[in-house]
Amino acid sequence: MDITFCCADTNADEWLPGLRAALPEATITLWQAGAPPARYAIVWQPPRQFFAEQLQLRALFNMGAGVDALMGPHLSPNTLVVRLNDAGMADQMAEYVCHALIRHFREFAAYDQDMAQRQWTYREPLPREQFPVGVMGLGALGERVARAVGVFGFPVRGWSRSAKQITGVECFSASEGFAPFLRGTRVLVNMLPLTAETESILNRSTLSQLQRGAVLINVARGRHLVEEDLQPLLDGGQLAAAVLDVFRQEPLPADHPFWSDSRITITPHTAARTLFQETVAQISGKLRALERGEAIAGVVDMQRGY
Amino acid sequence: MDITFCCADTNADEWLPGLRAALPEATITLWQAGAPPARYAIVWQPPRQFFAEQLQLRALFNMGAGVDALMGPHLSPNTLVVRLNDAGMADQMAEYVCHALIRHFREFAAYDQDMAQRQWTYREPLPREQFPVGVMGLGALGERVARAVGVFGFPVRGWSRSAKQITGVECFSASEGFAPFLRGTRVLVNMLPLTAETESILNRSTLSQLQRGAVLINVARGRHLVEEDLQPLLDGGQLAAAVLDVFRQEPLPADHPFWSDSRITITPHTAARTLFQETVAQISGKLRALERGEAIAGVVDMQRGY
Repeated sequence: MDITFCCADTNADEWLPGLRAALPEATITLWQAGAPPARYAIVWQPPRQFFAEQLQLRALFNMGAGVDALMGPHLSPNTLVVRLNDAGMADQMAEYVCHALIRHFREFAAYDQDMAQRQWTYREPLPREQFPVGVMGLGALGERVARAVGVFGFPVRGWSRSAKQITGVECFSASEGFAPFLRGTRVLVNMLPLTAETESILNRSTLSQLQRGAVLINVARGRHLVEEDLQPLLDGGQLAAAVLDVFRQEPLPADHPFWSDSRITITPHTAARTLFQETVAQISGKLRALERGEAIAGVVDMQRGY
Repeated sequence: MDITFCCADTNADEWLPGLRAALPEATITLWQAGAPPARYAIVWQPPRQFFAEQLQLRALFNMGAGVDALMGPHLSPNTLVVRLNDAGMADQMAEYVCHALIRHFREFAAYDQDMAQRQWTYREPLPREQFPVGVMGLGALGERVARAVGVFGFPVRGWSRSAKQITGVECFSASEGFAPFLRGTRVLVNMLPLTAETESILNRSTLSQLQRGAVLINVARGRHLVEEDLQPLLDGGQLAAAVLDVFRQEPLPADHPFWSDSRITITPHTAARTLFQETVAQISGKLRALERGEAIAGVVDMQRGY
C-alpha cells in the first residue's frame, strides 16, 4: 500500500514517523511535484498540481472535517474522498463553544475588568431561558455541541439541511425551517460545511432575524460570514458580540478592523485542531478497512459537498 | 403560618413581595430586633440577636447551600435547619467550573493577549488525559459539576467524607482516600461544606500533593484556603493558576495581594447566586410540605455540619 502525504501547515517530521509506525505495511512518502502515482493520499489543502498529477487515487484522506478545499479541482469520480469524523475534534468544539457561551452569559469578561480595578461588584444573573442557543449544522460535531450546551440548561435549537431528531434539541430543517430557527435564537453557533449554498449565509439579512442582543459564534469557515455586515450589526445593537475562529483571509491581516473591536473575540482557527494520535489512529484504521474491502465512515458526497 | 425574614445582603423589597405572592396564606414580616417569635424564619447570615430572640422556631430556611454561618449560635434542637438544594445553583456551579477549566486548558486568556497585539499564533493542544479534574465534595452541587466536567472528556475524580458511587467518576472517600485523590488530580475543584474538619483543608501540605502545574478552583468558602500558602505555591510552579470565588474576608480588601497577581482570577462570590424564582418556589413548597407534616429535602444534620 503506497501513500503520498501532502499537507499544508503540517509538521511532516512529526506526522510521517507517526503514520509509518501505525502502518508498517505501507510505504508513505512526502509528496513532491512529479512524484509517481500513489494508491492513497493524506492531504490538507493540497496545491493544484497535486490534483493534476494524482488522478488515479483510490482514496484521499482529508486531515480535517471540512473538505471545501477539495471541491474545486477535478478529482476522478473513482476516488473516495474521506474526511475526519470527530477524531478528538468534537470535544474541542464543545469546549470552545461552551466557553464562549458561558463567558458571555455570565459576563466573565466584565468581571475580569472589575478585577483589574480591584472592584468587587455583583451583576444580576440573567435568566437562562432568555438565551436560546441555535446550532447551524447537525453533523457529528454540531450534534455534540448541541448536547454539550444542553448540559448547562440552555434551551437548544438546531438547523440542518435534512431533518434530524436529537433528544433535547428543537430541530428545524431546510429553507422553510430557517426563518423560524433564526427568530427564536439568541446565540447562533455556525458549524455548517462550506458549500455553494452555505457561503455567505451569515449576513445582514439573516443575522437581523436573530433575537436582539444576539451573539454569533463562528467555528466553521470564514466564507460563511459576510464580514462587512458584522460591525454595523454590532453598532446597532442587533448583535451584542461575536466570537470568531475563522476568517475569509487567514491569518487575519494585521490591518483588519475586527482586531481592534472589543465586541469581537478572535482566535486563530484553533477551535478544533487535528490531534495527532486520534487522527493517525483513525486514518490508519480506515486505510486497513478499505484494503479489506470494508465500508468506512466519513466518505464525502461530492455532489452535496460534505 | 407566620414567617420572619432576616437576610443580609438581600433586597427585601424584591423578596418579601415574591414570598407573599407565593404564600398568600402566610404572614411574612421583615425581622427587627425585639420582633415577636415566629414559627418559621428565612435567613442569610442573621445577626446574633436574631438567634437569641427566635428560640422557638419550628424551622429555619437558609437562603443558600452553605449553612456554616448558622453553626456557631445555639439554635434549639427542635428547630429544623433547611438549606437550599440546587434551586438553580447546580447549573451555575457547572458553568463557573467548566468555564474556568476550559479557559485554562485551552489557554484562552493567552489567546486574548495575542488578540490585543493582533497576533495570529498557534498553541499546541495539550493532551486532555494530562488534566484529571478532582472535585472535593460530592453533594448535589459537586456531583453536578463532576458530571459536567466529564461531558468534555476530562478524567474525573471525586472525594467525599462518606463513600459515593457516580458513573464516570473515580470516587475516593474519607481520610484514607484523600492522599490518593490529591496525587492523581491536576485541577482541584473545592465544593466542600465548611465545617471544623474542612476548615483550612486547602493548604501548603495538601496542595503540594497535587500534580505539578495544578490549578485550584475554589467555589466553596474562603476559610477552606490558607490564603498565605497560595502565592508561594504559584511562585514555585507547583500551582499554575487559581480561580477563587470566595475569600476569608468578603468583599476582598482592596489591599489584598491576590488582586494584583495575574495567576489568580478573582470573582466576587458569584459562582452560584441564589436565584429569585427558583428559591421562592423551593422554600414555599417546603413550608407547605412541613405544614402538611411531610418530610422535606435539605434538612441539615447539625452534628455533621451540612
